[in-house]
Amino acid sequence: MEKIITLDYGSGGKKTSSLIENYIVPAFRNDALAQLGDGAILAGHERLVFSTDSFVVSPYVFPGGDIGKLAVCGTVNDIAVSGGDPKYLSLALIIEEGFPENDLARIIESASKAAENAGVQVVTGDTKVVERGRGDGIYINTSGIGFLAHAGLSPENIREGDTVLVSGNVGDHGAAVMLARNKNLVEGEILSDCADISGLAKALRPLGRDLRVMRDPTRGGVATTLCEFVEDRSAGSTAAQNPENAGAAQRIKNAPCGIELFEKEIPVSPMVAAACDILGLDPLYCANEGKLLAVVAKERAGEALALLRGTPGGENAAVIGTVTKAHPGKVTVQTPYGGSRILTKLAGAQLPRIC
Amino acid sequence: MEKIITLDYGSGGKKTSSLIENYIVPAFRNDALAQLGDGAILAGHERLVFSTDSFVVSPYVFPGGDIGKLAVCGTVNDIAVSGGDPKYLSLALIIEEGFPENDLARIIESASKAAENAGVQVVTGDTKVVERGRGDGIYINTSGIGFLAHAGLSPENIREGDTVLVSGNVGDHGAAVMLARNKNLVEGEILSDCADISGLAKALRPLGRDLRVMRDPTRGGVATTLCEFVEDRSAGSTAAQNPENAGAAQRIKNAPCGIELFEKEIPVSPMVAAACDILGLDPLYCANEGKLLAVVAKERAGEALALLRGTPGGENAAVIGTVTKAHPGKVTVQTPYGGSRILTKLAGAQLPRIC
Repeated sequence: MEKIITLDYGSGGKKTSSLIENYIVPAFRNDALAQLGDGAILAGHERLVFSTDSFVVSPYVFPGGDIGKLAVCGTVNDIAVSGGDPKYLSLALIIEEGFPENDLARIIESASKAAENAGVQVVTGDTKVVERGRGDGIYINTSGIGFLAHAGLSPENIREGDTVLVSGNVGDHGAAVMLARNKNLVEGEILSDCADISGLAKALRPLGRDLRVMRDPTRGGVATTLCEFVEDRSAGSTAAQNPENAGAAQRIKNAPCGIELFEKEIPVSPMVAAACDILGLDPLYCANEGKLLAVVAKERAGEALALLRGTPGGENAAVIGTVTKAHPGKVTVQTPYGGSRILTKLAGAQLPRIC
Repeated sequence: MEKIITLDYGSGGKKTSSLIENYIVPAFRNDALAQLGDGAILAGHERLVFSTDSFVVSPYVFPGGDIGKLAVCGTVNDIAVSGGDPKYLSLALIIEEGFPENDLARIIESASKAAENAGVQVVTGDTKVVERGRGDGIYINTSGIGFLAHAGLSPENIREGDTVLVSGNVGDHGAAVMLARNKNLVEGEILSDCADISGLAKALRPLGRDLRVMRDPTRGGVATTLCEFVEDRSAGSTAAQNPENAGAAQRIKNAPCGIELFEKEIPVSPMVAAACDILGLDPLYCANEGKLLAVVAKERAGEALALLRGTPGGENAAVIGTVTKAHPGKVTVQTPYGGSRILTKLAGAQLPRIC
């Protein structure tokens, strides 16, 4: 049977990783790509940070935002969590024939506002139109350039005893989009958390090297992002196959660790918890589009929490876990009843086209 | 009636311009974007050149190339004609569910080879998967970063008497893709000219300020690109509305000029001419994906021609026209029989999804 691409290749979970590791990284072998960060840090060039993301969210207007705002915030956030100050964006549209001009105007307006609020300029763009039935309204790619302000952030810095923080309630975007697709399932409205988190990322800069790594847990949610933090890349990874790759050598230095989450400390809004119950989703696997996940040195955890809580959008920040050597490479969550379960990277296509 | 987006909004011609001018430029008002070059030049930042392009070509494999090679060359070329040395690319895939993994492997391989040949690194990427019937196999966005090596290139530099050159045969890509869609229409095969033209762009650097502007005439072809060179942007343009925009003021300085082409000097391969005849196309409106269009000072035209012809891919370069004050803002073509016709920007969707 011919192997084909299925929806779960786009879930941000296991299949996406396998596609990237089997096809993309080997084909384009280089240090910047092999880091597999949200943004590539281009050594030696005024410390550039470069990132790209295509947005195919359905529906393209959802409670709390639309694909225009999402496309700007998404790339701004990828640069911010890479330690960069986002500065320039590109904006490329793939529009389906028959798309209402009014919707286009609304989306552009909302992208424009988001860019202004984030202090970034959209400096280049592209527009393509495909026939009816060859798209779904509108898809948007944004790529972004930023300048590195906080160097050295990487999962390879994580060590035993470190503390895991999240900047606020988990799962809002995923739940909002799923409810927008399944109207009348739950009373009331859940808003996407779609927002620029560069302020939150910047707030943690005083931590210096005690800030190990940051990421915005989008597709695959908090669970998948944390799995990526601790997965053992020493076996079979492109980076490790290349002995000249200093990054790979350094990454292995502090491995292997695991992460232990405390379920009762993870902030989830009651509405999102209820919606996830009904939809059969786990908030830990639901996409976030305005949350920051950070690992910091234990001694600075209190300071980090205060810095996040003192920044707009971080009022509900929480310490949610700790780095352990008890189960290297694994993420577990302690339930309030004393039990514990293992979180793996998202398998299957739980939430296709969530962003 | 609700206004909708039609296929001609993606043609690269009049409707594409109107969409950009009505929605995009006003929303994201800034100097870099208002130049509407193939790449944005980011003043003050190590002279960065930034460009983006989405590729939706159908079929995604065509004689002479595929969407992977096209996506790499397309963005490399946009940076090169902006006067930059292309250096880093992003690669973002939107794949339709059911896409054969073998085709993906082939496309990635071909993108990888193109990147290696062009000396650029793919440093960041993204993968999304959409349901069957919401895409068409694969769409690719590449964005690119380069470093400015030849500053000051702009249509605003064009002045009376300047010479127009093209680096080789016109219309190959458009004709190749159209024939791939209409098999058995013509005997033999036309290959797309899909290629990296950064070597050709670099070859013209000794001309300094006597090289006025370069562009790669893709969607809309040579005719549409030349129309963009001479169109009067002083009325109603965003640039002109902003009195602080020095670029706009300078652009108006040398306006208005027109361009006169000599039809018998325009290199078109006999196969492409025959195919265009049958398909009812004009090679001047057919997309090129490996050609350079340049305007140079008359005194340096011979030197420019020699430089192009001495560079791989430029063997068939030709002087095809001259800049005139006789019909400002207009592009005309002199037929071999002494007649003359006016070329306007591509209207309608002559060749949807050509790139």
